[in-house]
Amino acid sequence: MGMVGGGEGAFIGGVHRMAAALDQQIELVAGCFSRDPANTASTGRRLHLDPNRCYASYETMAAQEAALPSERRIDFVSIVTPNHLHFPIARTFLEHGFHVVCDKPMTLDAAEARQLVGIVERSGQVFALTHNYTGHPLVRHARELFRSGRLGQVRKVIVEYLQDFLVHPHEKEGQKQALWRVDPAQSGAGGTLADVGCHAFNLLEFVIGPEITAICADKSTFLPGRKLDEDANILLRLQGGGKGVLTISQVATGEENALSLRIYAEHGAVKWSQENPNYLELFTYGQERRTLTRGSSYLSRAASQVTRVPPGHPEGYLEAFATLYRDFAGAVHAHLLGKPLRIADYPFPNVYDGLRGMEFIESAVDSASAGATWVNLPA
Amino acid sequence: MGMVGGGEGAFIGGVHRMAAALDQQIELVAGCFSRDPANTASTGRRLHLDPNRCYASYETMAAQEAALPSERRIDFVSIVTPNHLHFPIARTFLEHGFHVVCDKPMTLDAAEARQLVGIVERSGQVFALTHNYTGHPLVRHARELFRSGRLGQVRKVIVEYLQDFLVHPHEKEGQKQALWRVDPAQSGAGGTLADVGCHAFNLLEFVIGPEITAICADKSTFLPGRKLDEDANILLRLQGGGKGVLTISQVATGEENALSLRIYAEHGAVKWSQENPNYLELFTYGQERRTLTRGSSYLSRAASQVTRVPPGHPEGYLEAFATLYRDFAGAVHAHLLGKPLRIADYPFPNVYDGLRGMEFIESAVDSASAGATWVNLPA
Amino acid sequence: MGMVGGGEGAFIGGVHRMAAALDQQIELVAGCFSRDPANTASTGRRLHLDPNRCYASYETMAAQEAALPSERRIDFVSIVTPNHLHFPIARTFLEHGFHVVCDKPMTLDAAEARQLVGIVERSGQVFALTHNYTGHPLVRHARELFRSGRLGQVRKVIVEYLQDFLVHPHEKEGQKQALWRVDPAQSGAGGTLADVGCHAFNLLEFVIGPEITAICADKSTFLPGRKLDEDANILLRLQGGGKGVLTISQVATGEENALSLRIYAEHGAVKWSQENPNYLELFTYGQERRTLTRGSSYLSRAASQVTRVPPGHPEGYLEAFATLYRDFAGAVHAHLLGKPLRIADYPFPNVYDGLRGMEFIESAVDSASAGATWVNLPA
Amino acid sequence: MGMVGGGEGAFIGGVHRMAAALDQQIELVAGCFSRDPANTASTGRRLHLDPNRCYASYETMAAQEAALPSERRIDFVSIVTPNHLHFPIARTFLEHGFHVVCDKPMTLDAAEARQLVGIVERSGQVFALTHNYTGHPLVRHARELFRSGRLGQVRKVIVEYLQDFLVHPHEKEGQKQALWRVDPAQSGAGGTLADVGCHAFNLLEFVIGPEITAICADKSTFLPGRKLDEDANILLRLQGGGKGVLTISQVATGEENALSLRIYAEHGAVKWSQENPNYLELFTYGQERRTLTRGSSYLSRAASQVTRVPPGHPEGYLEAFATLYRDFAGAVHAHLLGKPLRIADYPFPNVYDGLRGMEFIESAVDSASAGATWVNLPA
Repeated sequence: MGMVGGGEGAFIGGVHRMAAALDQQIELVAGCFSRDPANTASTGRRLHLDPNRCYASYETMAAQEAALPSERRIDFVSIVTPNHLHFPIARTFLEHGFHVVCDKPMTLDAAEARQLVGIVERSGQVFALTHNYTGHPLVRHARELFRSGRLGQVRKVIVEYLQDFLVHPHEKEGQKQALWRVDPAQSGAGGTLADVGCHAFNLLEFVIGPEITAICADKSTFLPGRKLDEDANILLRLQGGGKGVLTISQVATGEENALSLRIYAEHGAVKWSQENPNYLELFTYGQERRTLTRGSSYLSRAASQVTRVPPGHPEGYLEAFATLYRDFAGAVHAHLLGKPLRIADYPFPNVYDGLRGMEFIESAVDSASAGATWVNLPA
Repeated sequence: MGMVGGGEGAFIGGVHRMAAALDQQIELVAGCFSRDPANTASTGRRLHLDPNRCYASYETMAAQEAALPSERRIDFVSIVTPNHLHFPIARTFLEHGFHVVCDKPMTLDAAEARQLVGIVERSGQVFALTHNYTGHPLVRHARELFRSGRLGQVRKVIVEYLQDFLVHPHEKEGQKQALWRVDPAQSGAGGTLADVGCHAFNLLEFVIGPEITAICADKSTFLPGRKLDEDANILLRLQGGGKGVLTISQVATGEENALSLRIYAEHGAVKWSQENPNYLELFTYGQERRTLTRGSSYLSRAASQVTRVPPGHPEGYLEAFATLYRDFAGAVHAHLLGKPLRIADYPFPNVYDGLRGMEFIESAVDSASAGATWVNLPA
Repeated sequence: MGMVGGGEGAFIGGVHRMAAALDQQIELVAGCFSRDPANTASTGRRLHLDPNRCYASYETMAAQEAALPSERRIDFVSIVTPNHLHFPIARTFLEHGFHVVCDKPMTLDAAEARQLVGIVERSGQVFALTHNYTGHPLVRHARELFRSGRLGQVRKVIVEYLQDFLVHPHEKEGQKQALWRVDPAQSGAGGTLADVGCHAFNLLEFVIGPEITAICADKSTFLPGRKLDEDANILLRLQGGGKGVLTISQVATGEENALSLRIYAEHGAVKWSQENPNYLELFTYGQERRTLTRGSSYLSRAASQVTRVPPGHPEGYLEAFATLYRDFAGAVHAHLLGKPLRIADYPFPNVYDGLRGMEFIESAVDSASAGATWVNLPA
Repeated sequence: MGMVGGGEGAFIGGVHRMAAALDQQIELVAGCFSRDPANTASTGRRLHLDPNRCYASYETMAAQEAALPSERRIDFVSIVTPNHLHFPIARTFLEHGFHVVCDKPMTLDAAEARQLVGIVERSGQVFALTHNYTGHPLVRHARELFRSGRLGQVRKVIVEYLQDFLVHPHEKEGQKQALWRVDPAQSGAGGTLADVGCHAFNLLEFVIGPEITAICADKSTFLPGRKLDEDANILLRLQGGGKGVLTISQVATGEENALSLRIYAEHGAVKWSQENPNYLELFTYGQERRTLTRGSSYLSRAASQVTRVPPGHPEGYLEAFATLYRDFAGAVHAHLLGKPLRIADYPFPNVYDGLRGMEFIESAVDSASAGATWVNLPA
């Protein structure tokens, strides 16, 4: 694979590299890690890459890799830049015939996202969006529970993603991670909404399906000088009459990555927390509470096939992330064999999910800007 | 003390009796436990009461007790009936010169609550509202933390009270507890809002002060034939710019009494859960997470003076409830000594809190009925 | 009831009084609260007792109460003194025809305990030992699970009771609670063994039956000047081949009252913790883990009949303690009706359990003194 | 690297491969995955290895790899076979000049272990033993806390490793994992003692140093036909007077990999659990309980340098395992640069730790065979 972004000072690039390496099916062989060629060169050296495949720009990279013989060139590119570059880079590589893994949120705005849907559809290439939490075995199991219908109609959902990353004005100290996240030109119209909100939204719809029909969002900015939201509380309405709340923050003092999902349905409820991902709680009316543990023999095939180590040996963030890479590699492999999967059959978040996420962010910003009024999500 | 309500088939009356008895300062000597004199008589027998002080109506009880010599008559009455009777009974006993403990919500609607405020103020009698969760030592400690100002401005609150009591249509099977709760004539305009929502609202304001300025409430009713809300999700806005969510349910499958409070402020956050009330989590930015345990020597006097047993020996629901009775007894004692406390100095929820709760319920119903729009709470 | 011990400066006396009061069936009317008559008098005043029934010695109390007409005299006495006084007081009241509630450990040594067994048997009076943790509904339920045989043969037990009460040399500062506990003349041959060890031992045998056949105990004393054990680790062997460990401490820094029980049997395992007593974990091989919650409808009658409030409203230390008083009152009532229960049918710990506890303490001291060698418990 | 063991049907080999791959510094290029050449060949194909470097025997592998030019041959071998093969394979590769990573327990018995110490010392090669739990950042931090002396003298330790792997007689169904574990010829004199006991022992001594001086072990075998221990309870005595228990099981119904460590010292206590490894609890007398979270800025350098992702994104079993490989690669790199570390300075378990583990297993077996009597560990 090749990588765009992820040079020194970046965070998520290293995560993608570990995730891709874990299962020993993917090798990083090319990259453009930074707009700064020196950073790209030194990152490439540290990663033992051929200097000739450490490129000064992503455009050059796409062109030169495309010019290599097929058995030597990269199969796909992994895009791990700030948000505003996702779209141009993805388009460029797709148009050069490469498959794409892209970090979230998919694009800078929904208009770009709609364009990207068309490009992906026309290209026939595989496109994956790294909503990495969907790779957890028990998230896959929860999805099966709802798909099977045995829990009945969803009545109430509570989704949270709480951090305290922005309690401190890191951007005033030049911290790279913070700088672009608080800049609308690089982050988009949503701050926390784009950074963690779209993960929370995606996780919910990954599990229960595209059920959210309308939202009412109230957002806050507390630190002086910040332009984007640091916190939001959002009411949700679901198809079929269910309701819920989605609450996110990057100023929730003391919280690290408190992403959690609680779904109360007619015949049962499930609870899952990202910080403790090896357990899924299952409640039913009038019965003992049950805790399902990752790796257990009673779990669905959807869970067991993405499980690497036995019950009681915790898997975490990187393993779930690696599962997306493994699933993506499988889809690319099927494509190479001439038997491409349909986009809707990908086991990982796809370009439509990415569009849905951008629509969520924009709708939330619209709702909040109008004083927290109801906005329908596109069907 | 005397009691109105709490006959056979009732639940909360027995709780009030245990709470009053625990500290051996209060003795139940009279009652009108039911509209059914036979129930009152048999309840009185079971409680070893003098049959002459088991009254057929609360009006008779108020009149006859008032006619007894002061050293023999009850000092106060405890009202544990369905909601619609709280007001007339409280008014009657206050007008006969008795102090009053009243279960929540205070009245059937806000108009009654406003009337009651006037009656209490004019009477000079002590009036306590049993928002029992305020009796927990660590809730008292949390309140001190916010009163002291050391946690700074509140930025985000998340308050929950989730039950599954109404997942099943108990009222169709004639269950007394459910029957009146789903009947607007007895419960008021709010269902779950009145039953658990006002507890959640009160707990938040008990800890951070009367900070909530506006709400936007979305409510649901799922089971056919029900007229009142079974579930609600509410956005909150606070003085000073803080925001939050309050989410309640009685159809959250598998939940028992999941009342919890999370408050994120500038310099720290606190978390408390009713189901595990002996612990208070305190988070500060960039530091180890701290867990404060009930009974510990480092806690505030507000906490230690309502603590009965040492750390590690759990106190629970009844102990917190008993603390309200003990605090109330203290206020009555001060009154008897001719040194009445000011209402604002009561350590327990008072008639103003009760009015605030009724305004919350009505505002939430108004908001939800208008399609979940913003409604300001009276200042 | 009457009480011996529990004057100012004492701890457990107040607990017994709250426990006895909670269910409104028992009234404290007489006492000898201290060897110091002034303390007894002031304690009596604080408790609103008749000064004539506040006695200067327990011998006088027994004699004078026995001389009262039966409808006026106490039915039973509650003994809440340091250990060395349990036996003489219990004997005296039993011989005067009173029923007895006695705190643990039952006596100063096993010889006294054996004597007391004879006295209780001959007297026909009801004798209860307040191993209060046996009053928890989920402990009662766990006992039913093992009695029913459905969990099969016990293979491994892990019982713990960890405190940090003695990390600090409170006795050097004259703290009354510590002073007698570190004095062999008042506490007996065991320190921590007598204070918390016998609770742990009793709880295990309450749940699985009198199954422990042999122990190997290693004990420690860390603080200079202390004569009694502050900590012990004990291997257990059970009838039928099961094994286990019982580990106790009063110098386990940071622990409060960490009494817990884990029992692994052929067909399932249970886990219970005193600090979080409203939950019982039930594990079975290859299945979801189950958590049983106090108050739930699926629990056994043994649990539900000692449950006061609904699921999710925590009960704690005092409620379990009160259950022993309620059960004891039931046994006394049966006795008064001329239908006494057989000792073996008491739902609370009896004089045989007390003897067993003393044998455990003495055997542990013997084992440890011999360098931690195996000692058989009397059958 | 090369690998011996880890063919189809094996478990731990795949774990080692993921662990080695995660940080992209180590490449698997050769192997002898099974005694069955067909298994080795197919495993090699699955791993995209050069068929010429998939060897029929480990002896051939050692010899042929040693004959390759230094820039092409493997730097080290990873040994992931059943226990009885560890020693001959390690010796062979060490004698051919290769560094070695070896799974635990180090050898079949202590005599082999002592021999291996000599071989490693003479060879000068790097030898690592994969007691993988030592790779967790918070285990490294706990070790720093004790090394710094700030927690004072250790008074009590409680170490547990509970599984239920052997509740079912898998070996009767031919399950490969179970078959060799219950066979003394392949597993050694200890069953559960060797499989999980030595992990528990190592973890304790990794954190507090080689402090255990004597043990008293009671072991059990429940399932008919089994020759080795399935469960053991062990008393520990420590230098300086501390004491403790180590309890292990593979028949603890419902337990998965419940390895945990609790250490109570004079000035504080720490608690850590393998199943929830991102948290370390730190208790001090009379103060709030503290929870330290992996990745936090306040942790020691020993912890932060083995941390891959931010706080709140859980790391687990594979990450800790990978840390041993990364640390080992560092030691090999230092060796290649001609600046080898001293064995005592390795950040990972070394050959002396391996010997200590074998002495523990043998002493425990000796103790238990003598009826659970005290045995001194070699100093």
